[in-house]
Amino acid sequence: MREECGVVGVALEPSCEVNSAALFIYYALYALQHRGQESAGIATHDGKHVRGIKEMGLVSEIFNKKQLDSLKGSLGIGHVRYSTTGASRIENSQPLLINYKDGTIAITHNGNLINSNELQAELEAEGRIFITNSDTEVIAHLLVKELLKSNFVEAFHRLMQCLVGSYSLTLLVDDMVVAVRDPLGIKPLCIGKIDGGYIVASESAAVDVLGGTLIRDVRPGELVILKDGEIESHQICRHKNFAHCFFEYAYFARPDSIIDEQLVYDVRRRIGETLVDEHDGKVDVICPVPDSGITFAIGYSIKSGLDYIEGLMKNRYVGRTFIMPGQEMRDTAVKLKLNAIRSNLKGKRVALIDDSIVRGTTSRRIVDLIRSAGANEVHIRVGSPPIISPCYFGINMSTCEELIASNKSIEDIRLALGADSIGYISIDGLVDSIGIPARDLCLGCVTGKYPLEVPGEVCARRPIERARGRCVI
Amino acid sequence: MREECGVVGVALEPSCEVNSAALFIYYALYALQHRGQESAGIATHDGKHVRGIKEMGLVSEIFNKKQLDSLKGSLGIGHVRYSTTGASRIENSQPLLINYKDGTIAITHNGNLINSNELQAELEAEGRIFITNSDTEVIAHLLVKELLKSNFVEAFHRLMQCLVGSYSLTLLVDDMVVAVRDPLGIKPLCIGKIDGGYIVASESAAVDVLGGTLIRDVRPGELVILKDGEIESHQICRHKNFAHCFFEYAYFARPDSIIDEQLVYDVRRRIGETLVDEHDGKVDVICPVPDSGITFAIGYSIKSGLDYIEGLMKNRYVGRTFIMPGQEMRDTAVKLKLNAIRSNLKGKRVALIDDSIVRGTTSRRIVDLIRSAGANEVHIRVGSPPIISPCYFGINMSTCEELIASNKSIEDIRLALGADSIGYISIDGLVDSIGIPARDLCLGCVTGKYPLEVPGEVCARRPIERARGRCVI
Amino acid sequence: MREECGVVGVALEPSCEVNSAALFIYYALYALQHRGQESAGIATHDGKHVRGIKEMGLVSEIFNKKQLDSLKGSLGIGHVRYSTTGASRIENSQPLLINYKDGTIAITHNGNLINSNELQAELEAEGRIFITNSDTEVIAHLLVKELLKSNFVEAFHRLMQCLVGSYSLTLLVDDMVVAVRDPLGIKPLCIGKIDGGYIVASESAAVDVLGGTLIRDVRPGELVILKDGEIESHQICRHKNFAHCFFEYAYFARPDSIIDEQLVYDVRRRIGETLVDEHDGKVDVICPVPDSGITFAIGYSIKSGLDYIEGLMKNRYVGRTFIMPGQEMRDTAVKLKLNAIRSNLKGKRVALIDDSIVRGTTSRRIVDLIRSAGANEVHIRVGSPPIISPCYFGINMSTCEELIASNKSIEDIRLALGADSIGYISIDGLVDSIGIPARDLCLGCVTGKYPLEVPGEVCARRPIERARGRCVI
Amino acid sequence: MREECGVVGVALEPSCEVNSAALFIYYALYALQHRGQESAGIATHDGKHVRGIKEMGLVSEIFNKKQLDSLKGSLGIGHVRYSTTGASRIENSQPLLINYKDGTIAITHNGNLINSNELQAELEAEGRIFITNSDTEVIAHLLVKELLKSNFVEAFHRLMQCLVGSYSLTLLVDDMVVAVRDPLGIKPLCIGKIDGGYIVASESAAVDVLGGTLIRDVRPGELVILKDGEIESHQICRHKNFAHCFFEYAYFARPDSIIDEQLVYDVRRRIGETLVDEHDGKVDVICPVPDSGITFAIGYSIKSGLDYIEGLMKNRYVGRTFIMPGQEMRDTAVKLKLNAIRSNLKGKRVALIDDSIVRGTTSRRIVDLIRSAGANEVHIRVGSPPIISPCYFGINMSTCEELIASNKSIEDIRLALGADSIGYISIDGLVDSIGIPARDLCLGCVTGKYPLEVPGEVCARRPIERARGRCVI
Repeated sequence: MREECGVVGVALEPSCEVNSAALFIYYALYALQHRGQESAGIATHDGKHVRGIKEMGLVSEIFNKKQLDSLKGSLGIGHVRYSTTGASRIENSQPLLINYKDGTIAITHNGNLINSNELQAELEAEGRIFITNSDTEVIAHLLVKELLKSNFVEAFHRLMQCLVGSYSLTLLVDDMVVAVRDPLGIKPLCIGKIDGGYIVASESAAVDVLGGTLIRDVRPGELVILKDGEIESHQICRHKNFAHCFFEYAYFARPDSIIDEQLVYDVRRRIGETLVDEHDGKVDVICPVPDSGITFAIGYSIKSGLDYIEGLMKNRYVGRTFIMPGQEMRDTAVKLKLNAIRSNLKGKRVALIDDSIVRGTTSRRIVDLIRSAGANEVHIRVGSPPIISPCYFGINMSTCEELIASNKSIEDIRLALGADSIGYISIDGLVDSIGIPARDLCLGCVTGKYPLEVPGEVCARRPIERARGRCVI
Repeated sequence: MREECGVVGVALEPSCEVNSAALFIYYALYALQHRGQESAGIATHDGKHVRGIKEMGLVSEIFNKKQLDSLKGSLGIGHVRYSTTGASRIENSQPLLINYKDGTIAITHNGNLINSNELQAELEAEGRIFITNSDTEVIAHLLVKELLKSNFVEAFHRLMQCLVGSYSLTLLVDDMVVAVRDPLGIKPLCIGKIDGGYIVASESAAVDVLGGTLIRDVRPGELVILKDGEIESHQICRHKNFAHCFFEYAYFARPDSIIDEQLVYDVRRRIGETLVDEHDGKVDVICPVPDSGITFAIGYSIKSGLDYIEGLMKNRYVGRTFIMPGQEMRDTAVKLKLNAIRSNLKGKRVALIDDSIVRGTTSRRIVDLIRSAGANEVHIRVGSPPIISPCYFGINMSTCEELIASNKSIEDIRLALGADSIGYISIDGLVDSIGIPARDLCLGCVTGKYPLEVPGEVCARRPIERARGRCVI
Repeated sequence: MREECGVVGVALEPSCEVNSAALFIYYALYALQHRGQESAGIATHDGKHVRGIKEMGLVSEIFNKKQLDSLKGSLGIGHVRYSTTGASRIENSQPLLINYKDGTIAITHNGNLINSNELQAELEAEGRIFITNSDTEVIAHLLVKELLKSNFVEAFHRLMQCLVGSYSLTLLVDDMVVAVRDPLGIKPLCIGKIDGGYIVASESAAVDVLGGTLIRDVRPGELVILKDGEIESHQICRHKNFAHCFFEYAYFARPDSIIDEQLVYDVRRRIGETLVDEHDGKVDVICPVPDSGITFAIGYSIKSGLDYIEGLMKNRYVGRTFIMPGQEMRDTAVKLKLNAIRSNLKGKRVALIDDSIVRGTTSRRIVDLIRSAGANEVHIRVGSPPIISPCYFGINMSTCEELIASNKSIEDIRLALGADSIGYISIDGLVDSIGIPARDLCLGCVTGKYPLEVPGEVCARRPIERARGRCVI
Repeated sequence: MREECGVVGVALEPSCEVNSAALFIYYALYALQHRGQESAGIATHDGKHVRGIKEMGLVSEIFNKKQLDSLKGSLGIGHVRYSTTGASRIENSQPLLINYKDGTIAITHNGNLINSNELQAELEAEGRIFITNSDTEVIAHLLVKELLKSNFVEAFHRLMQCLVGSYSLTLLVDDMVVAVRDPLGIKPLCIGKIDGGYIVASESAAVDVLGGTLIRDVRPGELVILKDGEIESHQICRHKNFAHCFFEYAYFARPDSIIDEQLVYDVRRRIGETLVDEHDGKVDVICPVPDSGITFAIGYSIKSGLDYIEGLMKNRYVGRTFIMPGQEMRDTAVKLKLNAIRSNLKGKRVALIDDSIVRGTTSRRIVDLIRSAGANEVHIRVGSPPIISPCYFGINMSTCEELIASNKSIEDIRLALGADSIGYISIDGLVDSIGIPARDLCLGCVTGKYPLEVPGEVCARRPIERARGRCVI
């Protein structure tokens, strides 16, 4: 099951006056809410018991004071989840709490195993049973299996040798908060110092919210143990190259997060600047598609010296339960979300800046909206290269058939969107803007070359060399 | 975990026009709602997939038309649950759906394993993990383990050799609805013929609701397979004696259910009649504690020729969220639930008929209520013998310390309740009223002699011979 | 708008330690919940302000501790409501709070004005506006109009001269709780002494719940003022005769309530006894339709010396959200609510006792149920005379067209219901059983002769003499 | 009661194929949701009946497809409401539906009457009663009073002669949608042409959402009648000057709305530009307080040629139920809402742009946040002049005591906020930026000179000439 998620782990010194990891995790999950709005959960360890609360809904809807107070202890983990496959069942929400021979373990997972079916089949062949549909239960089985055979660090080593795919994990085991990042570092995970202890989290914005300081990223292949007010690190695997997901920079993460030493805001600004260099086209104003295009547009505006304007206002109240109009009002949906400011667009040549184009349907409507507000020309500039292939590592994208760039030439895309010109950032330009070598990025969805062999992958057109996925040291 | 529950299984002929087991199960669960009001669930098999819906709440609150329609298929099982240990977690609700090597199995369970801790420890020693706190997950692990080793019937044989305690199970396995009753037949389970197929259910009232006909009880130690419109029976175990729970007759089951060939109504009426024989005491009127004492009182009235009256009116709207008054209004709670009808009681010698006395606190308040309504004398008559020992097989009773009869003589109980006389039914009288030999009943809570050895059992005062719990054939 | 409702008023001495009328009213409304399950409300006066909380739902669902605590004060009124016309709007729920020249008044109303359209038209002609659809707002307008012209008692005199119909009112005005009963005393209203003060309520069961003592009924045409720990009484109107609703005794009120000096339980028991006298027919067992037929059946059984049995078990969990089966399961609905106990009915001649027959559809299904359980004969005995005409004073009945007795002879009713015999109580028998002279009862629905002229009334077949409705002294 | 609200009215041609005003109103209310998030309601007229639905909550939470379908008709009005006084009662939500002599009227109101107490007292002196606490009920009484005396237009003339304060009304009367704007035009109201009819709405963004075209503002003192597909206009009052609320431009309205012929976005951009002219201070970057400071900052950036940056990221998930941390985490609250982007601020001289400063507490925390992110200097620039006096016409501001500028000099404010400099826009600069002469603006909160005499007003320091408030022609 493909999932976008956010994970957190907090370990406070037992002597810490604020002896409540749960409250810290609650605030951290607020800061990571953009990574998953479907369900959320917190589990804590109070020295004797592990307790968890998880529910469908937003962090703000799930937890009240009484519940947080009931989650006692100086250690805890948390999770926000957005399932991309429709299996919106409470059973699949996290943290997953499991009982085993030596006690209780709680696990959260951000990422996607590409060999989970294979692993589950192996485990089922041993007679094991599965209650959820999540990769996390697979990880739990394997971890327990290894913990019963080996010492703690060795168990994680063996676990990581089994897992293929992306995984940033936080766990509660005994009196430890444990964090693990896959050997390719596909999904982000970082460590921060907070008052009275440490935090691990998907993004550094969660550290900021607690008034903490980002220490560093969890290294690809690293096992981090937070215990007794100390950080213990074990480099379990070491790959030559990494595969950091570029889409975290282009779309998914918060601009104010630092991921693998790059501030997302800066990456987006630099992409905006690079777009100026890479694409000609005389325009009068720079207009973002809010909210995701804003930082790109600011970079574009600064570099080009052209005015940054708000040509589209976003209605922040349009929610899930919105009642769709019938055919006769088919444009109302997009207008409810975005309204054009006519005087900013009328008679102008507009550079419309967006972070990415996936299926193209919304872009087409936005171009129409801008034209009908009187723009003379609409020049689309896109902060990601053409997306030609799906993501297998945890970002919810469409299938090949739905990806407009998988099926059309750039010129045909331009025609389909009704734009006067369209300019995607180049892959080289993207890589330079991120500031991380291409060999350390996952660019699978824009190149078709994945860092790991994906069983049954069909979008990519030509054979390419791939890393062996499992953990090697 | 001790639980009171109700279980159902429905198998319709695939050709059946009403191709929806879910609707049948929904009505059947309505009829079994008294067996558990905490959560409910239904799972169905549509020939390809097993789907389940379960939630906290009453049957009427959980299911709507759309949800029932989504549970397609001609096979299904259902469950209502009342947890007695406070672990009111959705994770523990049923049916439990598990995936294993050969597919998906759904399980419901009514009863209580007394060796589940031991079994779980053995399974954990093999490296297995547990996600819920329920006995049912233990059963699922064992069943899958055996299914992978043996043929279907043999697997259940081996399973039942492991389980010690009470269990009436319904399962969905492949294209079968399966029902199992423990070798002692502690918890009820019956088979009925309904239009287009068959039903298994905890009580025959669920058969009646569907316009069906009770065929017979599932036999202790029997495995019943409903498949292709046929009933297949396998007598897996055969014990010399059974241990049918007498409390189902005295309190728990519906009066209109037939359990192990005895109509509960008739048993209660006969108990009422026997109470007349067993206890002297001149009284004027026969007054039940509503609702549980009603049928006993009718029997008492018919046998004694004395008038059956309603001396206490029950308020049917008093629910869980009731706001308790402070000390100054301490009698309001009982008055809200029960109001005395003065003119029926004033100046009368009242026989107050109840099904059982557990802790005695409510009885004390009711005696007070009747006295303050002007009764001259209050003579308590009780449809169960003194309860001296807890139940380990699924009925929620108190601990030894709380059981009034475990700690006081009959005379001291009378004094504590403030009654003029108190008359319990004798154990012999009870057995005769039920119409089943004592050797085939579980009378553990009134004798301290349990049909199975209970680890750590402390209430019973003297050593007694016990059956070996496991399945023997 | 026709409504069934319950009303309460509580006045505690300001010095009373339990300075919270709201809690008392809360418990009293619990005791009156059977009079209306659609909405409930409480308003209190804390010496300075009147505050109210009202919502759709049951008393137990609406109020929590925090809300009751917020309703401060030693004076208050409360209301439960069931609307019979579908106007289930929160705007129509009560107490109605209105601001006027001299402060705030809160009003609750049980009953139905038959001249409310006329009154509203008169008030509208003066330029007044109406926000709710309830009679209560009409009363509020008239009361305020008179309060501004006259002294307090005189104002109520004038008000009652305007109102035609049934009305039991409780009001909060300044530092008084006020209770009013219409001159014919159609709807019940009584006064009780409780610890620290007084209560007025629709039924005496609400007094009992608070541990109080019934003092007496509010007299028809009486104005009662509870103030400073005193009861002040003003006999505003005096009619020669009254018109107490007989249906309160036969169906609507609780058996444990005393209304106009008659215990409802006794009335029902006596009706049961009278039915024995009035109707022959050899039967073996006496079986009530639960719950409403129970007390009648007890009386019938005692008088006839025949056994009282439970032939039908009622499922107490069938609620509003029940999903109706399709045509193929058309009998499931009644079976879900009522299950026949075969062994109590098989081969028997059954006297089936019900409180009343309105449309006859449910009765038909119950007769079928009893026959298919094997009864040899079914003899219906009914605690009300044939209902031939609608109620205009607050009981929700059907229209003429729907009333089976309005359209069929007794023999045709018997045929329609499929019974072997049918015996209604006679009007004389009913009157004797109630113990109140016919001239002081409203028997409109069984005689077609209403105590007040009903505009547009069409069911009654012949001209009859009627009282002038308005208050005369 | 002071309220911020949004109002809508829609009149479609009866022949219009989309015969559902309710759906149009639903979308329009979505576009006006920023004007009130506490409750919402819609009322429609289907040719015979007026029906309304209103509830506490957001538009998206209140209405589902079934409810909208039940609101039939080609005419309707709608309302979103935010109460500023805590009287969050459903009774006060709108539209208010009232019945009167000639039928049903529905009313919505945006604004605040300053003589409502006086008017209500007059009406109460006539014996009238009030059920809600809203000005709207006062208006309803007066309107009905006049309608019964005069012809339709004359009635509104007389009504407007009574009302003093701000009021933009939409009404449903008979087969008309009616819109009224107070003589000073304090609150906005505009007319748009939509497919099949017309719309009146608080802001033109609601017209845009329906794909319509803004026709013009409703004129101060104008009565607009939408009927039979025609617009009928009556200029009821004519004042020499108007008093358009400047705060709609500076804060309250959407940037994409055109109010009194000025696009809000343009006003804010021009204010930003003017701030550059009015205040020196060498800065490096222009940083808005999101979201309200954004457009000002864009203007400031364009005019100054300095880079527009995002220095503060806003968390869009922080909602009402947010659990406040204890003292030890006192900065978490602001950090949850706003996170500083260090690299954009470090070592920079930052111009921090906000729309207004009311109490100053949040500004103080933001300055701290920016400083602790490493900014060298923080220069606050504010899009409104110092707010020295409360609003009496519908904007929720603080009392005199709480307004920082009412009690401190500019230099003291700077010190209190910890800024290196603070620059408010001048009143002249504001007026020029708006593009409307000062004589036609309400600047009461920044000058203390109100367009109408406010009873009991104490903040303003010196006597000033004021318009007579009532309607004069």
